[in-house]
Amino acid sequence: MDLLKELRGFLPDDQVTVNQTVLEQHSRDESYHAPHLPDVVVFPKSREDVSKVLQFANKHQIPVVPFGVGSSLEGHVIPYRGGITLDFQLMNRILEIRPRDMLVRVQPGVLRTQLNKELSKHGLFFSVDPGADATLGGMAATNASGTTAVRYGVMRDQVRDLEVVLADGRIIHTGGLSAKSSSGYNLTGLFVGSEGTLGVFTELTLRVYGIPEATMAARATFPSVKNAVDAAVAIISTGIPVARIELVDAISIKQVNRFSGTDYPEAPTLFLEFHGNEPGLKQDVESATELAMQEGCQGFQFETDSKARSQLWEARHNLAYAFIKASPGKKLMSTDVVVPLTELTGAIEHARQMLDEYGIEGAVLGHVGDGNYHAVLMTDPNNPDDVKRTEHVNASIVEYALSRGGTCTGEHGVGVGKMKYQRQEHGDALDLMAAIKKSFDPNGILNPGKLIPAI
Amino acid sequence: MDLLKELRGFLPDDQVTVNQTVLEQHSRDESYHAPHLPDVVVFPKSREDVSKVLQFANKHQIPVVPFGVGSSLEGHVIPYRGGITLDFQLMNRILEIRPRDMLVRVQPGVLRTQLNKELSKHGLFFSVDPGADATLGGMAATNASGTTAVRYGVMRDQVRDLEVVLADGRIIHTGGLSAKSSSGYNLTGLFVGSEGTLGVFTELTLRVYGIPEATMAARATFPSVKNAVDAAVAIISTGIPVARIELVDAISIKQVNRFSGTDYPEAPTLFLEFHGNEPGLKQDVESATELAMQEGCQGFQFETDSKARSQLWEARHNLAYAFIKASPGKKLMSTDVVVPLTELTGAIEHARQMLDEYGIEGAVLGHVGDGNYHAVLMTDPNNPDDVKRTEHVNASIVEYALSRGGTCTGEHGVGVGKMKYQRQEHGDALDLMAAIKKSFDPNGILNPGKLIPAI
Repeated sequence: MDLLKELRGFLPDDQVTVNQTVLEQHSRDESYHAPHLPDVVVFPKSREDVSKVLQFANKHQIPVVPFGVGSSLEGHVIPYRGGITLDFQLMNRILEIRPRDMLVRVQPGVLRTQLNKELSKHGLFFSVDPGADATLGGMAATNASGTTAVRYGVMRDQVRDLEVVLADGRIIHTGGLSAKSSSGYNLTGLFVGSEGTLGVFTELTLRVYGIPEATMAARATFPSVKNAVDAAVAIISTGIPVARIELVDAISIKQVNRFSGTDYPEAPTLFLEFHGNEPGLKQDVESATELAMQEGCQGFQFETDSKARSQLWEARHNLAYAFIKASPGKKLMSTDVVVPLTELTGAIEHARQMLDEYGIEGAVLGHVGDGNYHAVLMTDPNNPDDVKRTEHVNASIVEYALSRGGTCTGEHGVGVGKMKYQRQEHGDALDLMAAIKKSFDPNGILNPGKLIPAI
Repeated sequence: MDLLKELRGFLPDDQVTVNQTVLEQHSRDESYHAPHLPDVVVFPKSREDVSKVLQFANKHQIPVVPFGVGSSLEGHVIPYRGGITLDFQLMNRILEIRPRDMLVRVQPGVLRTQLNKELSKHGLFFSVDPGADATLGGMAATNASGTTAVRYGVMRDQVRDLEVVLADGRIIHTGGLSAKSSSGYNLTGLFVGSEGTLGVFTELTLRVYGIPEATMAARATFPSVKNAVDAAVAIISTGIPVARIELVDAISIKQVNRFSGTDYPEAPTLFLEFHGNEPGLKQDVESATELAMQEGCQGFQFETDSKARSQLWEARHNLAYAFIKASPGKKLMSTDVVVPLTELTGAIEHARQMLDEYGIEGAVLGHVGDGNYHAVLMTDPNNPDDVKRTEHVNASIVEYALSRGGTCTGEHGVGVGKMKYQRQEHGDALDLMAAIKKSFDPNGILNPGKLIPAI
């Protein structure tokens, strides 16, 4: 079948392309996973465009892969079975801001920074911050989170409603404008994190927050990673409502300084942020400082002005890119496990041991307030031995987490990279997931080969 | 088939009964919905008991209805098709408290107050507080919330893992101990709020919180319901993190005073609570007071000692019972809509108009910080005209909410009472819900006739 011709039969010519460069741009994400070309890329402009494409694809059993900016880390957007990639860059409008309802309605191609720029005019912000300037559609598809989840929750906590085009082209809404609901099954939560395998998002209604009265950022350095993690666990367990609490190990600080031009002390560090009213925040900072000191904190450096604060988080966000830049020819493999807080110190020590044992120059960092950390492993995709060795370390870290009630992925998602752990993590529950997939997408056209392993 | 004999074939005699009084206790909930007897009541002691009963019931296509304490408000536990009621009062153990992980593992028959009593020994509390001393299993089944949801979220936000027995007797876990996960579809969120129609809970792992350093409760009286609601909306929109903010109208205050022996001014009132560190809380209280004064607040009365605070919330919790006691022979019909905050004042004014127009002596109260309110309508179940009139008002309130992006039920759930609004609220998404039901429970034995209307 001539896909280009068929699709141009019901879509304007400039919304459908088989240009080689464009196909290549849609053949990969930011991870080490092998690229694969789609047969065609479509740029929908409306829910109706998406619905028409899906009706067509469903009839002819052609795979369809939704695509934001390709910042996924487990191969989610790589079209391993070819077919149609739906790129949402033309559906990037902020449709409605309702400041008093603390809600915003957006198209899936809206970027995180684009949304926050607009929201700031109303004294509001969108809380989820995965580092990458991802699209809101992509963030909902992977249930992204990041540095602020410890205070404001993950993507799933922010989505009130999704407009979804189903495999057969039907358009549904999963929720509404209510702050809560006990009506019907929770389809919103089911679609968030479904990685394009159950339906394609064409609109999102999201919860937003008022910009806090006061914000304070800080860096706390420790003699060891263990001390830093123990301090983080103490701060969280005490109930201090930190807005961010990030572990950055010494190797990562080196990369930060090199890439971002900072001169932070090259020691295990917690990056912290506090939000609140002035007096409450002051008290929170005091309590946190005290707990950090009890863990041997060697310096608690406050970033009071907004420029230094921005630089701090900018540096943290750019860490993955810093590693990528520092390792030419290599690609990023990142673990993303979560463990209960009481298991966190042991888990991070185990990860460090594995890295040392296998001679991998990687970093350990992450969202320790949630028990979520990343071992950043650079690997050479053209060197099978290197990939195998790195994958072995990756697997060992995942096994450690799963054996302690943890999860194989806290925020990156399953994609193709974490599929092999799904049975071990979910047991027979995986069969229920497969049954849902089968019932929502009987022809298996929606991002096939992702999330749910062939059973 | 002799159900008693068959069930006693694989369960101890004292765990299975057809005693008439026991059957009657399991024929109703706290609502106006007509009672119906189960054929037999089973008291499981373990997941294995539940699994055996479900395997048996599935084989013989016998309905199974899980039962906590019967405090549901939409007929959820009424076995309209007879069959087996599973009463969880013997599965009422707190299995594990992990204070540093802020987690607790419980059996489904554990009561809310029982859990909080135990947690308080560790400086912890469980946040969800629906008023009734319900079981945790029942609260998860209906996605209950209540007064503290505005700060801590609803039941769905607290559940980390469910052990669920499926219709065919298989036992699965929906989650784990992680604070967040992007692994697989979100089955935990799907089962929470499924009202016993997708599986039966045998264990719950729940998030708990540290008891806040400082707590302050207050009553603020206003010249009108509109002023009270506008003040609440202003407080929420400003981002003051109130822990509770409840509207209690003048009629309800009268009932409170009569039933609970208080002497609160009989005017539209907000009941508030603040949690935080001392200085932060003080600032929050000041900001809230200022906003209330701008809406004509006639008195901001603080309940500083813990006894007066307990009395305040006790009085609020007993409101439903106060109305029931004040109307002998009548039963409770409660609306439970949620609307976006900007629609709340209009919605409550509309509800008040409907009550006046139809001469129904009812109250309007609720969790206004979430946009969730209840019109409490007492009706005589033996007077069809009375029921019809009350149902008409109920329907009109629901229609108003749905037409403004709201939901027909914020926390009570669908049961049988809100089934008729499911198509209107969910549109084609209801077909997806029905498909999930069909795939999880192909023989339709799990709480049949609830939540999902026959399609």
